[in-house]
Amino acid sequence: MTQSPIVQSDTWIGTADLSDVSEEDIEMDSGVQAVWEGARLAGQAYTVRIPPGDHRGVFRAIATAGPGSILVVDAGGGADRCVFGGVTAVAAKERGIAGVVIDGLIRDRDAIRELRFPVFARGWTPRAPRPRTDGRLRETVLVGQLQVNHGDYIVGDGDGVVRIRQEVAGTALELALALVHQEHDIVARLKLGQQLSDFAEQLKRLNKGQLQ
Amino acid sequence: MTQSPIVQSDTWIGTADLSDVSEEDIEMDSGVQAVWEGARLAGQAYTVRIPPGDHRGVFRAIATAGPGSILVVDAGGGADRCVFGGVTAVAAKERGIAGVVIDGLIRDRDAIRELRFPVFARGWTPRAPRPRTDGRLRETVLVGQLQVNHGDYIVGDGDGVVRIRQEVAGTALELALALVHQEHDIVARLKLGQQLSDFAEQLKRLNKGQLQ
Amino acid sequence: MTQSPIVQSDTWIGTADLSDVSEEDIEMDSGVQAVWEGARLAGQAYTVRIPPGDHRGVFRAIATAGPGSILVVDAGGGADRCVFGGVTAVAAKERGIAGVVIDGLIRDRDAIRELRFPVFARGWTPRAPRPRTDGRLRETVLVGQLQVNHGDYIVGDGDGVVRIRQEVAGTALELALALVHQEHDIVARLKLGQQLSDFAEQLKRLNKGQLQ
Repeated sequence: MTQSPIVQSDTWIGTADLSDVSEEDIEMDSGVQAVWEGARLAGQAYTVRIPPGDHRGVFRAIATAGPGSILVVDAGGGADRCVFGGVTAVAAKERGIAGVVIDGLIRDRDAIRELRFPVFARGWTPRAPRPRTDGRLRETVLVGQLQVNHGDYIVGDGDGVVRIRQEVAGTALELALALVHQEHDIVARLKLGQQLSDFAEQLKRLNKGQLQ
Repeated sequence: MTQSPIVQSDTWIGTADLSDVSEEDIEMDSGVQAVWEGARLAGQAYTVRIPPGDHRGVFRAIATAGPGSILVVDAGGGADRCVFGGVTAVAAKERGIAGVVIDGLIRDRDAIRELRFPVFARGWTPRAPRPRTDGRLRETVLVGQLQVNHGDYIVGDGDGVVRIRQEVAGTALELALALVHQEHDIVARLKLGQQLSDFAEQLKRLNKGQLQ
Repeated sequence: MTQSPIVQSDTWIGTADLSDVSEEDIEMDSGVQAVWEGARLAGQAYTVRIPPGDHRGVFRAIATAGPGSILVVDAGGGADRCVFGGVTAVAAKERGIAGVVIDGLIRDRDAIRELRFPVFARGWTPRAPRPRTDGRLRETVLVGQLQVNHGDYIVGDGDGVVRIRQEVAGTALELALALVHQEHDIVARLKLGQQLSDFAEQLKRLNKGQLQ
């Protein structure tokens, strides 16, 4: 897996910025959220598809995904069993995996927070997984209504998670970087006493949903 | 806008205390919550009414609301786009606005938390706003089922948000202050080993929902 | 009330570990959660049954429950009034009560967090309780669909709350302790560079939901 152009950037590019510069819908539904405050992640998706509560595919993915990958686990939304927990988080972190996004449930939330390992999920439960299958790796998966291809770029922060298709990642990065610099500039000027109205034209462009 | 009697108090008066001393229902529904832990606000409402996802009215309100105001934004509950974010939060804070309550969605939650600017909303999304109208300012708005008039007093904390009508704000402050002092007194005595039962009569009065 | 075997342990045994070693369903539904991040509790249940919003039974329980007890309050799920708040939390803590689990609502969330008193509930509201009855103490109650007997063991952490029946508490503790030690061992070895696959057989046993 090549280095993510989004991850290579020295400037943090958030989900809101990527949403702004994207012409298509890239946002996962808001049910998938950081399981601890401040968690954020960016990298290329390593996809996993498993039945709800069946975590064996996650173990297989941890053994095979490259450093910097984001595991994107389609567990069908969750039912009532977890598919990821504290021990698995240590294993993933030690392998260099950069974060995990799960359409399903996790557990050991306190331990995962202490580890500072970024995990996004639909919720948590103490209830153990029940392995039945090997799962499927590196196939296209669904997180809510959003399709994620193996190798797509994934970014998550306090606002949720977005997916950038590989084909547009370079352009999205470039546009988002320009946007972030403009926002930093506006914020600096606001702190010097300028008003939002001084940026009316600039903000109108920013608010069009993409730079032009 | 005159100084809020509630804000002038040296003692913090919480939403629970104001709920206790109010004869009418003053609580916003529990869907509207602090977007970061510990956020709280108090001040007079500067009302804004906008279609979901249409944030231009918020920009206009920031330009015109006086210092100490609380923007109360009726965005119809939210749909799927935000109407407030990190740049707007900096602008509002620089103008001296004391906080924002939104029946709708925000974004840039991590940045707003770092800024320590108090924002209450129904949730968050990375998805950009779409300005279409100028919105309406200083009119009566609805947050959930609760009516908020321009100039009403607004208090928000970890329990949610309440609205105190201007006509009763002085009385509510006086009653709530007396209540807070009684509670402080009871807490101090509990820590010295007294029992809840020692305060049976006093607590019965407190629990009637208003001081008498 | 005797000392809890679970509480006596020097090692923290979490809800996930207890879930793993239990043959029956022991998990409260995920609507009942810690009201501040990091809250956790363990001890024997002192049960309270009250109508929604009617907190007088909680006062009575605080006066009579022994040190180390966990109040388990069946308030019918909550409706729109609280049954527990900041003053009651101070009283409970001073009496040596180890925590509170409520199928209902609380208030004074900020104060309870500052007090570091562990409370689990369905949510919060500023709205005052309305005492009407004395409630019923030390009877079997329901939290969601889970039955809790007076004297059962209760454990709560970031993943939710579980109940261990008195009859199986000794065995559950023993099994869970062995499980925790195995997990600690696996985590230590993962950090030394071993892979999850090195523990395949061991993890298979752990994942069966109980030690054998």
